[in-house]
Amino acid sequence: MIDLFATTKVQELIPKYVTFIEEEVIPIELQLLDVSDINAHEQQLMKLREKAKIAGLWAPHLSQSHGGLGLNLVEFAQVSEVMGMTPFGHYAFNCQAPDIGNMELLEGYASNDIKSAFLAPLQEGKIRSCFSMTEPEHAGSNPKYLSTTAVKHGDYYVINGHKWFTSSADGAAFAIVMAVTNPEAESPYQRASMIVVPTTTDGFELVRNIPIMGEAGARYVSHAEVRYNNCKVPASHLIHEEGQGFMLAQQRLGPGRIHHCMRWIGICERALDLMCKRATKRKISSKEVLGDKQTIQNWIAESRTEIDAARLLVLHAAHKIEIHGSKAAKQEISSIKYYVAHVLQQVLDRAIQVHGAMGITDDLILSWWYRHERGARIYDGPDEVHKSVIARSVLKDYQTKEQ
Amino acid sequence: MIDLFATTKVQELIPKYVTFIEEEVIPIELQLLDVSDINAHEQQLMKLREKAKIAGLWAPHLSQSHGGLGLNLVEFAQVSEVMGMTPFGHYAFNCQAPDIGNMELLEGYASNDIKSAFLAPLQEGKIRSCFSMTEPEHAGSNPKYLSTTAVKHGDYYVINGHKWFTSSADGAAFAIVMAVTNPEAESPYQRASMIVVPTTTDGFELVRNIPIMGEAGARYVSHAEVRYNNCKVPASHLIHEEGQGFMLAQQRLGPGRIHHCMRWIGICERALDLMCKRATKRKISSKEVLGDKQTIQNWIAESRTEIDAARLLVLHAAHKIEIHGSKAAKQEISSIKYYVAHVLQQVLDRAIQVHGAMGITDDLILSWWYRHERGARIYDGPDEVHKSVIARSVLKDYQTKEQ
Amino acid sequence: MIDLFATTKVQELIPKYVTFIEEEVIPIELQLLDVSDINAHEQQLMKLREKAKIAGLWAPHLSQSHGGLGLNLVEFAQVSEVMGMTPFGHYAFNCQAPDIGNMELLEGYASNDIKSAFLAPLQEGKIRSCFSMTEPEHAGSNPKYLSTTAVKHGDYYVINGHKWFTSSADGAAFAIVMAVTNPEAESPYQRASMIVVPTTTDGFELVRNIPIMGEAGARYVSHAEVRYNNCKVPASHLIHEEGQGFMLAQQRLGPGRIHHCMRWIGICERALDLMCKRATKRKISSKEVLGDKQTIQNWIAESRTEIDAARLLVLHAAHKIEIHGSKAAKQEISSIKYYVAHVLQQVLDRAIQVHGAMGITDDLILSWWYRHERGARIYDGPDEVHKSVIARSVLKDYQTKEQ
Amino acid sequence: MIDLFATTKVQELIPKYVTFIEEEVIPIELQLLDVSDINAHEQQLMKLREKAKIAGLWAPHLSQSHGGLGLNLVEFAQVSEVMGMTPFGHYAFNCQAPDIGNMELLEGYASNDIKSAFLAPLQEGKIRSCFSMTEPEHAGSNPKYLSTTAVKHGDYYVINGHKWFTSSADGAAFAIVMAVTNPEAESPYQRASMIVVPTTTDGFELVRNIPIMGEAGARYVSHAEVRYNNCKVPASHLIHEEGQGFMLAQQRLGPGRIHHCMRWIGICERALDLMCKRATKRKISSKEVLGDKQTIQNWIAESRTEIDAARLLVLHAAHKIEIHGSKAAKQEISSIKYYVAHVLQQVLDRAIQVHGAMGITDDLILSWWYRHERGARIYDGPDEVHKSVIARSVLKDYQTKEQ
Repeated sequence: MIDLFATTKVQELIPKYVTFIEEEVIPIELQLLDVSDINAHEQQLMKLREKAKIAGLWAPHLSQSHGGLGLNLVEFAQVSEVMGMTPFGHYAFNCQAPDIGNMELLEGYASNDIKSAFLAPLQEGKIRSCFSMTEPEHAGSNPKYLSTTAVKHGDYYVINGHKWFTSSADGAAFAIVMAVTNPEAESPYQRASMIVVPTTTDGFELVRNIPIMGEAGARYVSHAEVRYNNCKVPASHLIHEEGQGFMLAQQRLGPGRIHHCMRWIGICERALDLMCKRATKRKISSKEVLGDKQTIQNWIAESRTEIDAARLLVLHAAHKIEIHGSKAAKQEISSIKYYVAHVLQQVLDRAIQVHGAMGITDDLILSWWYRHERGARIYDGPDEVHKSVIARSVLKDYQTKEQ
Repeated sequence: MIDLFATTKVQELIPKYVTFIEEEVIPIELQLLDVSDINAHEQQLMKLREKAKIAGLWAPHLSQSHGGLGLNLVEFAQVSEVMGMTPFGHYAFNCQAPDIGNMELLEGYASNDIKSAFLAPLQEGKIRSCFSMTEPEHAGSNPKYLSTTAVKHGDYYVINGHKWFTSSADGAAFAIVMAVTNPEAESPYQRASMIVVPTTTDGFELVRNIPIMGEAGARYVSHAEVRYNNCKVPASHLIHEEGQGFMLAQQRLGPGRIHHCMRWIGICERALDLMCKRATKRKISSKEVLGDKQTIQNWIAESRTEIDAARLLVLHAAHKIEIHGSKAAKQEISSIKYYVAHVLQQVLDRAIQVHGAMGITDDLILSWWYRHERGARIYDGPDEVHKSVIARSVLKDYQTKEQ
Repeated sequence: MIDLFATTKVQELIPKYVTFIEEEVIPIELQLLDVSDINAHEQQLMKLREKAKIAGLWAPHLSQSHGGLGLNLVEFAQVSEVMGMTPFGHYAFNCQAPDIGNMELLEGYASNDIKSAFLAPLQEGKIRSCFSMTEPEHAGSNPKYLSTTAVKHGDYYVINGHKWFTSSADGAAFAIVMAVTNPEAESPYQRASMIVVPTTTDGFELVRNIPIMGEAGARYVSHAEVRYNNCKVPASHLIHEEGQGFMLAQQRLGPGRIHHCMRWIGICERALDLMCKRATKRKISSKEVLGDKQTIQNWIAESRTEIDAARLLVLHAAHKIEIHGSKAAKQEISSIKYYVAHVLQQVLDRAIQVHGAMGITDDLILSWWYRHERGARIYDGPDEVHKSVIARSVLKDYQTKEQ
Repeated sequence: MIDLFATTKVQELIPKYVTFIEEEVIPIELQLLDVSDINAHEQQLMKLREKAKIAGLWAPHLSQSHGGLGLNLVEFAQVSEVMGMTPFGHYAFNCQAPDIGNMELLEGYASNDIKSAFLAPLQEGKIRSCFSMTEPEHAGSNPKYLSTTAVKHGDYYVINGHKWFTSSADGAAFAIVMAVTNPEAESPYQRASMIVVPTTTDGFELVRNIPIMGEAGARYVSHAEVRYNNCKVPASHLIHEEGQGFMLAQQRLGPGRIHHCMRWIGICERALDLMCKRATKRKISSKEVLGDKQTIQNWIAESRTEIDAARLLVLHAAHKIEIHGSKAAKQEISSIKYYVAHVLQQVLDRAIQVHGAMGITDDLILSWWYRHERGARIYDGPDEVHKSVIARSVLKDYQTKEQ
């Protein structure tokens, strides 16, 4: 904990989350990832959530009136790091992506009907949801490139389109779909809208769980390709207003990136912990353990420093979002998105190398992250896009000065 | 092809291998990797090998008297690059690891009985084999650390031990096992021997195919954990002499590293090819494709240069081995082992990043290599060990000068 | 300014320092570095200091009773960044190394006589001083390796030894010398002491100002090789107690590293500023400026992010020193020492590259830093040593757990 | 020596050059760089050249009819590496830039009159020359950006313009100047010409030797800013034809980059040699020398490998130029230009770090190269431009395939 950010709440809660994660989640993390028996998998998850509720740690991001702990962004960020130390950490407390982002979105912008129909059971952990934006045919980074349409017919939208990386669609109760409703809008940023589509809607087709890095996965642990074939939903399923899809996406992404980054820092801490355990235990001769080698020491030192830098950057960005809003923190958010993803990849790579052959087996959790977090430098905007955002933001001041 | 190394044979053969790989192997590479139906998998492989024989490309590394094409190391290296462009490239021509290394070993050091019983069917592609050296309890880099024992009782060795990363043991006809026969030998390098153990021997226990980066695999595409429980084999199964295990391992590893490195270069070329295809096709706006972005250009340029450097280093090392032997080329072999593995990881990482979300799916071959070649920096000696070998070799001259 | 650290004092002072640095120092920075006419050089410096006093910005690190502004470490760190933007920034306000470190040392540990004889005029900016520790014959990182001796004869110490990198000895009034007084002490860390040696002492021989990266420099801008030939000083010149040299060095280094790191961050900000100016002004075609190129954008983005990370790390370390002391912050101090030096080198390198041929000329300040801050990864402990310190500190917890 | 490239001539000559460099040049290299007494400096150089002639090693790049040794490009490249080990290596044998490039240019394209007036004394080492192309106002990478003009008036050209980085202009007998003669030419690549301008011409103004990285230097060791103020030269001073300036520049640059790259490799070998000497001699405790530390070993191993890769790349490119010409080897030339410059910077940086404080002093040659070869990533085209050249060359095949 960094005293600068450790509120009383955080100081009180962190040790509890640490205990829960260490005692209840980490020991069964490899089992939780096994989806070969879906029923067993889901029952185990349900049990875990019951324990989380009993421990009084449920839904730290939700207000107390919604059954949560009422943490603000900076506080939640610190809890998120602890949860990040194991893949189902966030799930245990119902604050996993994409549901947490959907909750925030619906809380802020949906009608009361939508809230009671979809948000309430989501907050209670009775259902799951997904977010359907990326299309295989188009570069995600360019907002003009979106083919999915939602055409209004009377009181309904009829949605047609092809999406992928609709994470956790398998078993989800509804999707929030990004679709073009106003193709004629002058600004390409005002053509799309977000609409709630129950997965039971006719024409909602889960084409497949995309095999990613060796695994198609299932249910929560999956990334679906989805087709929307003339999906008809009531017009009231629109979130906020027509043409506000990008504004909403931006709203969703600011805190979303804080969540991801702190989760990654949790992964880093876990990887460093495994690295240090191995370094002190693995004998390489009768007198020496791995940690006596200077190369290993260099990796530990660099990992320690880079993780510390990453955490300060993220918490500072969260602090800025909280005080000045996501827009004001745009540059900082892009900085952490690419920087922490980079640190994550470096630290995981070192941790694997320290474990030698064991590092690439699935006997350890490292290989799972190595595979599934290669995407960290791609999802929510690839490094390249974020660097351009930062540079343009920095250079803007100079261009203005010129005139 | 680099004219400095392109003998007539190479100039004639390379285009044929390119055609075969492009027309017969790459189009079905993702299917070949699918082991969900073992029979279908093996039949497909058998067909592929038949085509290879018909095409006159079978076993380029074997002498013509053994049914091969009689290429020397430098020639084979260049063919190996072409085969490396797809995972089953080497398999198609019966020059895949670990079998190729075992063939070289038996050819050079086994008794005639062993040759006719095990080597002949291996060369004909009728059986497969495996190599059992690494132990989970010990750092592979330290020769003093080997617990498997082979105790002589009359005309037999009784072998006990625990190995892992015995690649392709599943379905193999025999293993070459590294075991301590002479625990009292003064030099720790003269305590172990290599012994042929048929997998049908009582006490040969294939504990599991180790799940690696998301897949346990099967048959050829697997890495087994094996226990030797009082495995009794005739004393004539000893390869060469007692206490010569490490000498043999060194012999085996020199050319073996050339094979791996050239295979990795093949992977790099394939990855660069996919990168360039994507860069010229993927639109990011109505006017621009990915390849117009300078960052993508940097990656292509760096990949092109690094691959060229890698190839020259490897072929030069192969050339040196051929002229002066593996021992004289020890430093060069360590250089290419770590350097090419590094280039491989860099190029694969860039290729994935250029493909965005698609890059992490299993719809492309890239993710398979990303996962299964993370081990390239570990197997056959981790980077760290090779760097020490190089440094000590370089510094030796200076220490001598001192005296 | 980062609100987390911006006290009222800082908020009030920073803009004043920025104005002074931008208006009074930067415009003449290249002239200030010119020591070809020593008198002119020194007069210019004197004038600058007078302006600093008039502006009410003199000696921010000193208590108000000593004529300063009474800033604590975290506050001073932030001011130090501003001063760091130009080579004579700290000098203008009398808080330049090595004098600031010597002031802290004498303030904390010298006798009252020493204070009035040496500290008072130093604080007033009437004299300069130097610090004489490193020896050419020995690795600075190893405390057992120190040949300079101070032998007590009655009321005097007689000092003999050979030092280099005694920065700013040329023109200094006194040196603080690290010398072995207790060669028999059990711990090698308790053999040396610090002693004040006026440069007018017989036997004090300034051998040369060492040419460094193309310049020997002179006066404040120089790094001397010094011989102590039977230098006789009163025993009362001992600082603190005999055998406490290393303890004092550690005391001196904690805050000293904060000072250096924040100065480097100031250099980074200046370099990034020059980079951005060049990027927006330099045309590379009729339509494009350098800043339109993605590679340049990447460098700007990476520099911005790394500098932000560095600043947070340093201020957090300063905050920890202030609350818990240098010893408790040992790991953090080693982290910033190597990390910020690395960022510094990266950012300077990029800034030079952005300027093309101009970047390597002395028409800009960049080349001066490029040369004179290559030492940043060496002085006050090379990267390698700091990484070992961090690793050992991290691993200590694991070793303890073991038992 | 690499046997693939070691012709009989090379095998015979290399040891002689090594001996000369080690015995005659390296021992006085720091003195040779000292230009504080110009006369002494030049006399020392003259003596060195006399020795080179006596040793039968003069002008290896020139044909025997011109007093040289008649080496081809690949042979000369290997000699160039040896000479590169010390700053005045090439100078000793009259094959230093920019004179060697000018010799090649005049040999290939100048009229016989120009040859006898300017080339002959240059080949004999009686005069020096310079090459005047880069302009401070324009990015060197863009051929449209050239302001210097040569306007024809009868039998004369009148040249006006502002150049910098006209290396070694101080003391040179003539400059080859790049100037726009055909501003109306359709292609921007056909507007400029190269013209010989004696430095005694009225209006030739050597504004200054530009201070670079701390030194303005003098004579051969300098980089001038030059103004051409109505410089009138006979029309016969035109080299080749009007509008052929860029073609000539390209011709000049191909082999020129081989020369630079091999010289850099010589620097790298020297730096690695110093690194190894230090590593084996510098004690860090009673039992350990620097070279026992794994970090130092890593640097040595990486340097060894990278230098080997660099050498193979360069010699292979030289080989390609010789067989297929500079144009066919364009991609390879760009690869080596950026790659070897990068290796150079890495190796020098490591060598300095291994030497600690001594590494940044001018007591060793390392700091001179560290400063004066920072330009290697800029002159003759910055890294960024070369990477674009490579990428466009690679991608061209894919774009063609498309159609």
